Amino acid sequence: MTTNNGKPLQLAVVGLGYWGPNLVRNLHDVPGASLRWICDLREDNLERIGRRYPAVARTTSFDEVLSDPEVDAIAVATPVSTHFALASAALDAGKHVFVEKPLAATVDQAEVLARRAADAGLILMPGHTFLYSPPVTMIRELIEADELGDIYFISTSRVNLGLHQSDASVAWDLAPHDFSILRYWLGETPARVAALSRDCIVPGTPDVAFINLEFASGTIAHVEIAWLAPSKLRRTAIVGSRKMVVYDDTSNEPVRVFDSGVLPSDPTSFGEYKLTYRTGDIVSPRIEASEPLLLELTDFCNAIRSGAAPRSSSSIGVEVVRMIEAVDRSLAESGARVEVGAASEATL
Amino acid sequence: MTTNNGKPLQLAVVGLGYWGPNLVRNLHDVPGASLRWICDLREDNLERIGRRYPAVARTTSFDEVLSDPEVDAIAVATPVSTHFALASAALDAGKHVFVEKPLAATVDQAEVLARRAADAGLILMPGHTFLYSPPVTMIRELIEADELGDIYFISTSRVNLGLHQSDASVAWDLAPHDFSILRYWLGETPARVAALSRDCIVPGTPDVAFINLEFASGTIAHVEIAWLAPSKLRRTAIVGSRKMVVYDDTSNEPVRVFDSGVLPSDPTSFGEYKLTYRTGDIVSPRIEASEPLLLELTDFCNAIRSGAAPRSSSSIGVEVVRMIEAVDRSLAESGARVEVGAASEATL
Amino acid sequence: MTTNNGKPLQLAVVGLGYWGPNLVRNLHDVPGASLRWICDLREDNLERIGRRYPAVARTTSFDEVLSDPEVDAIAVATPVSTHFALASAALDAGKHVFVEKPLAATVDQAEVLARRAADAGLILMPGHTFLYSPPVTMIRELIEADELGDIYFISTSRVNLGLHQSDASVAWDLAPHDFSILRYWLGETPARVAALSRDCIVPGTPDVAFINLEFASGTIAHVEIAWLAPSKLRRTAIVGSRKMVVYDDTSNEPVRVFDSGVLPSDPTSFGEYKLTYRTGDIVSPRIEASEPLLLELTDFCNAIRSGAAPRSSSSIGVEVVRMIEAVDRSLAESGARVEVGAASEATL
Amino acid sequence: MTTNNGKPLQLAVVGLGYWGPNLVRNLHDVPGASLRWICDLREDNLERIGRRYPAVARTTSFDEVLSDPEVDAIAVATPVSTHFALASAALDAGKHVFVEKPLAATVDQAEVLARRAADAGLILMPGHTFLYSPPVTMIRELIEADELGDIYFISTSRVNLGLHQSDASVAWDLAPHDFSILRYWLGETPARVAALSRDCIVPGTPDVAFINLEFASGTIAHVEIAWLAPSKLRRTAIVGSRKMVVYDDTSNEPVRVFDSGVLPSDPTSFGEYKLTYRTGDIVSPRIEASEPLLLELTDFCNAIRSGAAPRSSSSIGVEVVRMIEAVDRSLAESGARVEVGAASEATL
Repeated sequence: MTTNNGKPLQLAVVGLGYWGPNLVRNLHDVPGASLRWICDLREDNLERIGRRYPAVARTTSFDEVLSDPEVDAIAVATPVSTHFALASAALDAGKHVFVEKPLAATVDQAEVLARRAADAGLILMPGHTFLYSPPVTMIRELIEADELGDIYFISTSRVNLGLHQSDASVAWDLAPHDFSILRYWLGETPARVAALSRDCIVPGTPDVAFINLEFASGTIAHVEIAWLAPSKLRRTAIVGSRKMVVYDDTSNEPVRVFDSGVLPSDPTSFGEYKLTYRTGDIVSPRIEASEPLLLELTDFCNAIRSGAAPRSSSSIGVEVVRMIEAVDRSLAESGARVEVGAASEATL
Repeated sequence: MTTNNGKPLQLAVVGLGYWGPNLVRNLHDVPGASLRWICDLREDNLERIGRRYPAVARTTSFDEVLSDPEVDAIAVATPVSTHFALASAALDAGKHVFVEKPLAATVDQAEVLARRAADAGLILMPGHTFLYSPPVTMIRELIEADELGDIYFISTSRVNLGLHQSDASVAWDLAPHDFSILRYWLGETPARVAALSRDCIVPGTPDVAFINLEFASGTIAHVEIAWLAPSKLRRTAIVGSRKMVVYDDTSNEPVRVFDSGVLPSDPTSFGEYKLTYRTGDIVSPRIEASEPLLLELTDFCNAIRSGAAPRSSSSIGVEVVRMIEAVDRSLAESGARVEVGAASEATL
Repeated sequence: MTTNNGKPLQLAVVGLGYWGPNLVRNLHDVPGASLRWICDLREDNLERIGRRYPAVARTTSFDEVLSDPEVDAIAVATPVSTHFALASAALDAGKHVFVEKPLAATVDQAEVLARRAADAGLILMPGHTFLYSPPVTMIRELIEADELGDIYFISTSRVNLGLHQSDASVAWDLAPHDFSILRYWLGETPARVAALSRDCIVPGTPDVAFINLEFASGTIAHVEIAWLAPSKLRRTAIVGSRKMVVYDDTSNEPVRVFDSGVLPSDPTSFGEYKLTYRTGDIVSPRIEASEPLLLELTDFCNAIRSGAAPRSSSSIGVEVVRMIEAVDRSLAESGARVEVGAASEATL
Repeated sequence: MTTNNGKPLQLAVVGLGYWGPNLVRNLHDVPGASLRWICDLREDNLERIGRRYPAVARTTSFDEVLSDPEVDAIAVATPVSTHFALASAALDAGKHVFVEKPLAATVDQAEVLARRAADAGLILMPGHTFLYSPPVTMIRELIEADELGDIYFISTSRVNLGLHQSDASVAWDLAPHDFSILRYWLGETPARVAALSRDCIVPGTPDVAFINLEFASGTIAHVEIAWLAPSKLRRTAIVGSRKMVVYDDTSNEPVRVFDSGVLPSDPTSFGEYKLTYRTGDIVSPRIEASEPLLLELTDFCNAIRSGAAPRSSSSIGVEVVRMIEAVDRSLAESGARVEVGAASEATL
């Protein structure tokens, strides 16, 4: 592993489509990082983005990037079908790798990548940006501090008039957000999944899905994702035994904590339950404004330097792909309840 | 069937617990109706409610009500486990019957009641009050007029810090609202159901459920119900091919119509889809303020006079119970996807 | 003063128009109070309201009420032009008096009534119901506890598609609400007033007014009142040196406390100010649901028994009329800034 | 006047403090415009901004800009106290001038500038960006099309935890926004103004003001501006005889049209008014997303080419300063109602 002894890390961004330019822009603000290459198959993308950054080298050849010994790390922002090949080659070339979410197109691919990175002592980081969003982080802290109590259930909706992708379902496009968040908050992968979807617009491409999740801890969750709703809706309710949180990242008050709930009590001698309701204040805590993508890329660079796994670890990346694959299996069996499967030891 | 020739209909209300007093109060405002009896096993309930209505006779004996030949119709507001016995006896005594939702505790019971009422030429009406709620009616009219286009999917949440019932699950308590509304809007019973639930507070009594529904027409729906959320949430999104509607009966603007969506288009010669997005105005139509329960009881009395089925028909009542039973079957099979089953001919 | 030694207070309600029936209904729930008479010039009002309360005597003669020695107190809910005559007569007859807001049609009348009641040892209470509204009370407590710091300014809007009154301007109709609340919160009457109004619909009857208020303490306030806005708006912002409160009694969260503001600091040696901004949490405190009118009438009865002034005191009643008169004077002088005038000693 | 015959207009931006960099950035996107110079007294500002635009010349000397014969127009984004001197010099040098709002520090200065530009056949444009905001434009169109009917009153609040300016009051800082919008919507300058303000934080610098405005047409308006409110509030209600509009540029639905109101009617033979209330739909029209500053600068360049006055004309610029001066006069006379004064002919 390169430690760089104070020298800025040299990075390359591969893929300048929808998301890549955001990586390019933010990398310029990461302390101790230097963007050395941008790489895309299309000359016009290179020209359009490169014009603003005259100091950055441009190439249409991924091999040229790989063979540059000065390059420490490569950020891959290409279609998911190419993630495995590009990330493998980068790891083989001894480069640390950041891959846009989802990490790979199958669990097998994701696990191979994770193992290869671990064996080589390289950082492999999937781009689960929401793990660096201040509201998501705050809720994780509330859960960790047991402020919410036991998590009874989580219900989340992520719908809007979306970018239809011809090569991916709504599950591969939107579920990685919610699945990575759930994995981060709960620290566990669901045991079972059952999903219902429909391909309203393009035959064969699901554009709405209702996904039920069961966790070994007892927590249950529902994830609703859709590309078809004209009004953007981002709403997650986390109902715990102590408090409830509503998270809406389109709101000026993205986190609202409701200090109320049902107080469970022991059954009386006659087997009856007496329930007490507690109602209290609602608090919208102050949330620090910060750019999640910048925090994410900074964490990547820090991980390269320290050798420790970043928050958005390869393990989380593998688990998210595992969850999406389970959704696909459930859909293939007409919505049957399917086992998600356990992580193999190597990836945890 | 009694036609009453201009004489006010004579009614009795049986059961003065949580909901019965609302029936008592509203019956006083129904034109052409006269409340003759209130009946409850508990003297203190009779005294508390009866005090305000000195002209209404009180009794703890249901038989006394049944044997009064002046009584045209009986409104039953007792626990669901007693619906079948009370409604059966009332029909046998030649009385029209209004039964609080759900109509009965099993599909078999509900079907027997519906058949018996039909054979006797009596009205049997379940109390699906939401079918008389002006926002629900307006949305039904939008759907009927094809304003929304094909209904792609419906997603609905009904959660709040609820009244825990020891004798019923959240599905028997809250789902009748959503199921009756869906049946009324779509005019079809779902073909298949898969449900996930949890008993967070009282072991054995589910207090949160995520229910996925598939309709033969292709529409899919998700119904989320819970007793555990401190913040009351009533939100239904109906996404059609032309427009989307958001319905929230806790809002000052309970119906909002979004004139935007995805325009599907034919595949090009190369098999690609070009999608066009259309965005437009949002309209909150004026909704007439009226008391649904009063409209419902008026419809009951009108049905008695005309002999025509009320909007909240026995057929809808049976179908709602069929849906709840299917939810229970799915839950019993750990969330498996189950067939809802077809209505027998007699009840449609 | 009657103390009643445990005997229920005997009350009469005079005036059964818009507001009187609310007094009648709530008086039935006040502990230790008994409604003995309802009085109205119109037989149909007496019949309509009296039907529900067979035990209450009815009369069209105010004198009959006055001459009943059993009557302890009279609640007057008649047009403001009659308040002085009716309240005077009631005080002369030795009755405690509750008068709907505003207390009287002029400051002179209000002061005479207040003095007369004081001299006779009788309670005179204007019906400023908002002083018993839980959100208003909570904000008063926040101010008293110095949670908000110095009150820099208050801005309030009370607009909706209103009940046009032919005999009163929007200032006499709506301003008593805001003026009584301001008086209660700040504990002072404004020193100066300047108002701008317009008679949009009925010539000569202002239906919108913008009122600027200056208090001796330095606090400034703006009160906007209108009958013409289709959307009901109730919004009050109280900006203090420590915290800000937004109060909206149409909201599910009627009080929101913003823990943020500008930190004033001493000028530097160069005469410059360095300002620090502080942002923090937003809290919606739990507000107890209670019926303000019931609390108000209970306070009236308690005041009769204890002899202590009720929260909505005759002094506040006089000050509110003084503020409205000042508004009228300003309007008569085309919006000039006018002195409100000091209370005479007798009424404080 | 230069017409440029298809050659791009050559511009300079003077002042790179808070707002100037936005002009620099947007000018790069204006068709037919070319940024030639950036000018600031501070080298570090030139370096910081200039780095991103290597093709743009930098100077600390305003004279260098003035003496460049290639420069067609100069955009001034310096403190208001310098507007007159810089704009005068630019006009004298034969350059078109764009000046950040407010146009000048006094009405006299503003009128001199406007006259000088007119005499020289040069465009003088104040930077009233809100006149190019799509919601503001849409409301102007609704008013023009008589959709709202007579404008009864306008009430507007613009408050937030603001940027305190040591050299200006809240009136000079924030009122230009609302005053320019009102002028644009109503097409008239108010006849009279009365204002109340307070200097809560910095002695001598008003940071909150309540401003009442009377227009010759009968419309009245209230403008509330403050730097002290922790929660950003932008809310304008325009109440017309036909419809009401609520405009909130912090909302996802910035314009909401309420189709309801009071229907005025003729007095009956007995001199009484019968009022009818009409309630209807609420519509949030689709608003095109576009960058107001880009539209504004494009209008400036188009005005230079066509010779026609831009929407944000020098005349509006003069009137806005006239309104602010009237506010200052009212404040100097302790809130007295003052005449705004008529425009001299030369500037209209």
